[in-house]
Amino acid sequence: MVPLEAPGLRPIGKGDCATPRICQTPVPMDDVSLPRGFTAHVANVGIKDDTDDFVVVASDGPCVAAAVFTRSRFAGPSVEVSRRHVADGSLRAVVVVSKNANVATGARGRADAEELAAGVARAIGSEPDDVLVASTGVIGRPYPMDRIRSHLSELRTPFGTTDAAAAATAIMTTDTHSKVASARIPAAAGTATVVGIAKGVGMIEPDMATMLAFVFTDASVDRDLLDAMFRRVVERTFNSLSVDTDTSTSDTAAVLCSGAAGDVDPADLEAALGSVCLDLTRQLAADGEGAETLVVVEVDGARDDAQAKRVAKAVVNSPLVKTAVHGADPNWGRVAMAIGKCSEDTDIDQERVRIRFGDAEVYPDDPGPDGLARLEDYLRSDEVVIGVDLGIADGRWTVYGCDLTDGYVRINADYTT
Amino acid sequence: MVPLEAPGLRPIGKGDCATPRICQTPVPMDDVSLPRGFTAHVANVGIKDDTDDFVVVASDGPCVAAAVFTRSRFAGPSVEVSRRHVADGSLRAVVVVSKNANVATGARGRADAEELAAGVARAIGSEPDDVLVASTGVIGRPYPMDRIRSHLSELRTPFGTTDAAAAATAIMTTDTHSKVASARIPAAAGTATVVGIAKGVGMIEPDMATMLAFVFTDASVDRDLLDAMFRRVVERTFNSLSVDTDTSTSDTAAVLCSGAAGDVDPADLEAALGSVCLDLTRQLAADGEGAETLVVVEVDGARDDAQAKRVAKAVVNSPLVKTAVHGADPNWGRVAMAIGKCSEDTDIDQERVRIRFGDAEVYPDDPGPDGLARLEDYLRSDEVVIGVDLGIADGRWTVYGCDLTDGYVRINADYTT
Repeated sequence: MVPLEAPGLRPIGKGDCATPRICQTPVPMDDVSLPRGFTAHVANVGIKDDTDDFVVVASDGPCVAAAVFTRSRFAGPSVEVSRRHVADGSLRAVVVVSKNANVATGARGRADAEELAAGVARAIGSEPDDVLVASTGVIGRPYPMDRIRSHLSELRTPFGTTDAAAAATAIMTTDTHSKVASARIPAAAGTATVVGIAKGVGMIEPDMATMLAFVFTDASVDRDLLDAMFRRVVERTFNSLSVDTDTSTSDTAAVLCSGAAGDVDPADLEAALGSVCLDLTRQLAADGEGAETLVVVEVDGARDDAQAKRVAKAVVNSPLVKTAVHGADPNWGRVAMAIGKCSEDTDIDQERVRIRFGDAEVYPDDPGPDGLARLEDYLRSDEVVIGVDLGIADGRWTVYGCDLTDGYVRINADYTT
Repeated sequence: MVPLEAPGLRPIGKGDCATPRICQTPVPMDDVSLPRGFTAHVANVGIKDDTDDFVVVASDGPCVAAAVFTRSRFAGPSVEVSRRHVADGSLRAVVVVSKNANVATGARGRADAEELAAGVARAIGSEPDDVLVASTGVIGRPYPMDRIRSHLSELRTPFGTTDAAAAATAIMTTDTHSKVASARIPAAAGTATVVGIAKGVGMIEPDMATMLAFVFTDASVDRDLLDAMFRRVVERTFNSLSVDTDTSTSDTAAVLCSGAAGDVDPADLEAALGSVCLDLTRQLAADGEGAETLVVVEVDGARDDAQAKRVAKAVVNSPLVKTAVHGADPNWGRVAMAIGKCSEDTDIDQERVRIRFGDAEVYPDDPGPDGLARLEDYLRSDEVVIGVDLGIADGRWTVYGCDLTDGYVRINADYTT
């Protein structure tokens, strides 16, 4: 097992984590193994092409679990079924079918999702309600159930791999690369590991969870404690992510704790969950459809955190701000415009607002011609931070998004049903 | 004067108007004259280049007037000054400076807006608070007041033109063509004319008014009646328009009634205002930045009109729906996704929703392969109608937008401060 402060670990971003020693993911990510007690089955069942599209991650025994889901009124059967299955705070496995969302497929879609959970439960020797089901891809098309059924009938434990990257790759749809993050914390049995995988590039403004994200740990934790800390973590990470303001019908984020590493300090676990989910959030934002730049919007000086989040989302979602970043144009007037859209926030006073790109203030202090030229260079970086100080009180929030490029339009105008 | 039902008039769109005889704008639009009593001064004062950028439209005498403005917290001095000047329901002139928004320019910007109103008032022999000021263009840069001041000092009545298209052209910033609409109604003195001009291609989700739109009429009407009917009209037209979800800091829509044509039936006037503003709304949507397709989203069967509007806006604003239209991809799953985003509307039930493209239902009735091929052709039209029936009650709303193209990204990534 890698020690807590091993070489070859990378921090996940300046100032993002209160506990730097756990804010680390190994480089390369291919080295990340699932925590003790978890194994994965990764396969191609021919949903769309010959890439891996079927994943089960299962635990040796029951796991304390928590999950959050999309609030979409067109939520799919996977979400409906999984919401029921996680209600008792206990899961043993997650099954993911990629490249078909099984959404808007009516009664048949619901029956298919139930059959999927039952088939996995039979294979691992548990009950259907121990299995969380998730699925993303094209909407409105039924699963090829003949192929899934025949695959399920041959599914046996023990599963073949503990490679987190293999599972992360198989849940992708149009992601350009897999997303894995991990952290370690002290535990009764030495060290507990927290490993997360995620996917998603478009239709991302979760508002309840991201596309798909699963976190596995061998830490032991009380179920109510886990549920509360996971919701706090999701709010500051996946719920602070926006690629295109569209919300998927399939969003799911779940955490499973096998307990194999024994008890941990809950504060350590929350920090580790936070660092893993934030790392995944940043990876998701940076891989947004057509994205060339990770855009981080930090708002402080707000009346409260909720106002800071509202303003930050208005800025990160503004197509005019996103295209300005893409064009490396330090047009801070568009940031001012986006802040101004929060018209219900009548305590926002343009005379007290300050705006900066990176560390350079642009409003009200004019950066001048030389400053603007330097800002153009800054806006060509892989990551751009837009800072807003509302000058009201101490509320603060950070959100994560990306620039808007012709690549986004091309990808989505050409994606065929 | 053109009679009510002259040849060479074009209807503004199927089913959009309850009173077809007034839903007409002359073709070509260059033939539209301002109503009796109004004249225009159109000039270049060198705000940015050598195109016309300075317009005053004034009436011979006082006008009953109403106006609505952006709710942006970064509203510019033009909006602040104009809000005050229209508060008494009376105006005599509108002055528009284009290609510089005079926004986020502090105390100097406020003084400049006041000086502009005062200069125009002096020239037409009225008070500063009879003048509405409007301005759009780059944010954060002061006016070149030396040039404006010297131009104002030479401004004299009578003004040189009554050509509505000349005024419409001079208020443009990056519009690809000018926007004019007109209608006629019976009046005590024969016929009253309603003529509107508008500009705007981006930063358009007004939520209170569009970018800039001015309607002039020689009809006579009570000021409270006018204010109420104008707000109703704006709600169904400019406030139902969205190009990119961004809201300008300068949005202004105003109506000035000289009364020269005498009394009219208020219902006729409201219908004429409605037809003129709807015509301008459709022109604005069709000329959205980079737009190739006018997208009309009609929602009915809603709990109430407000719910219908919320759902319609979710669909027309979805980047994934907009890119699907651009790619002529009948991917109705994205429309379902966008409806699903209205997560507070818990009475929306995916089992009762119906979705259509044009007249062809796509959900829940599957159009089949032949139907999909026909839909691809339909989606290549200049205007695409997406219909949603929520199956709840009788609420309905129609909104107007456009597709999202690489042209939008190119325009906005390259627009320089």
